[in-house]
Amino acid sequence: MIQIPLGVSARHIHLSAEHIEQLFGKGYQLNVKKQLSQPGQFAAEETVIAVGPRGTLEQIRIVGPARAVTQLEVSRTDAVTLGLNAPLRASGNIAGTPGVKLIGPAGELTIVEGLIVTARHIHFHTSDAVKWGIIDKQLLTVKLEGERSLIFERVIARVSDRYALEMHIDTDEANAAGAKTGDIAHLLTSVDA
Amino acid sequence: MIQIPLGVSARHIHLSAEHIEQLFGKGYQLNVKKQLSQPGQFAAEETVIAVGPRGTLEQIRIVGPARAVTQLEVSRTDAVTLGLNAPLRASGNIAGTPGVKLIGPAGELTIVEGLIVTARHIHFHTSDAVKWGIIDKQLLTVKLEGERSLIFERVIARVSDRYALEMHIDTDEANAAGAKTGDIAHLLTSVDA
Repeated sequence: MIQIPLGVSARHIHLSAEHIEQLFGKGYQLNVKKQLSQPGQFAAEETVIAVGPRGTLEQIRIVGPARAVTQLEVSRTDAVTLGLNAPLRASGNIAGTPGVKLIGPAGELTIVEGLIVTARHIHFHTSDAVKWGIIDKQLLTVKLEGERSLIFERVIARVSDRYALEMHIDTDEANAAGAKTGDIAHLLTSVDA
Repeated sequence: MIQIPLGVSARHIHLSAEHIEQLFGKGYQLNVKKQLSQPGQFAAEETVIAVGPRGTLEQIRIVGPARAVTQLEVSRTDAVTLGLNAPLRASGNIAGTPGVKLIGPAGELTIVEGLIVTARHIHFHTSDAVKWGIIDKQLLTVKLEGERSLIFERVIARVSDRYALEMHIDTDEANAAGAKTGDIAHLLTSVDA
């Protein structure tokens, strides 16, 4: 059975270069706190605050480097805290999603869209995908074993030369499965392409 | 396929008669806010506060009537907020679990044990269990359909003449499945007895 390392994504934000400057100041460069398992991606030292109609999320970690479009990825629990109905989306697919107010040390802004709950997915390096017969956007079924064993359906395959093999779920999903980063997920099927 | 109504359990507490008096005053009687689907059980008007080493949970709903032993049922998310390592347990099995400080309008106390994350389970009336060949404590596999489809393994069957048919999961599990109270769960198997 194909084994896939698990990564649990806590709430985090990707910022455009323009929004980094608005929140942190003209010409500001993010500082690397920790390299992430996806090549080139890093957790920044910097965090932002998000303010919704019901509540606030503090210390939202920025994941760098800057991206073309700002996107805030939260759990449903976080969305309830904000009081916003964040839809389930694949990363990058933010059309029509709610906006939210962001606060940094040098300024604040309101994004008009970009708040999502990220659909569970697996990053495959192209070579692994070819070897296992998996194609980009294929929906997979994956099991996490344990006292809270769960089988996840509709796990999106994401295939790129820029990716390292890793399954990403959010904190609600990790809590529900009693799972943590570094656990091993088992690929059950590669149906529903 | 057997269909089972879903009930999502938010954090709540069962209190002993002695603890009700300590928190609300001598001779205090809980007031019924809403009858629950399990016969005789009710959400009370009253709430308590729980205080852990890291944080506090406000407005924890009391589920009445009084029980022999006080038990606080939280999600893993809530346990992280409190800063306590609440183990996964079947309801009523609290030996060796953490205690926590409780605050009510008339007093406060610290229970020495009773903080749990409740293991997902299905209440079966005895007549349903007999009809379907399910026995008490059997471990079942259940599917929740939707954009976040999940298959739950290790779902504990609980059989009694006092129960109405209902599957109970916590808010982390409901968020992970994109599910809500009133959804329909599908019983896939009755293996692992």
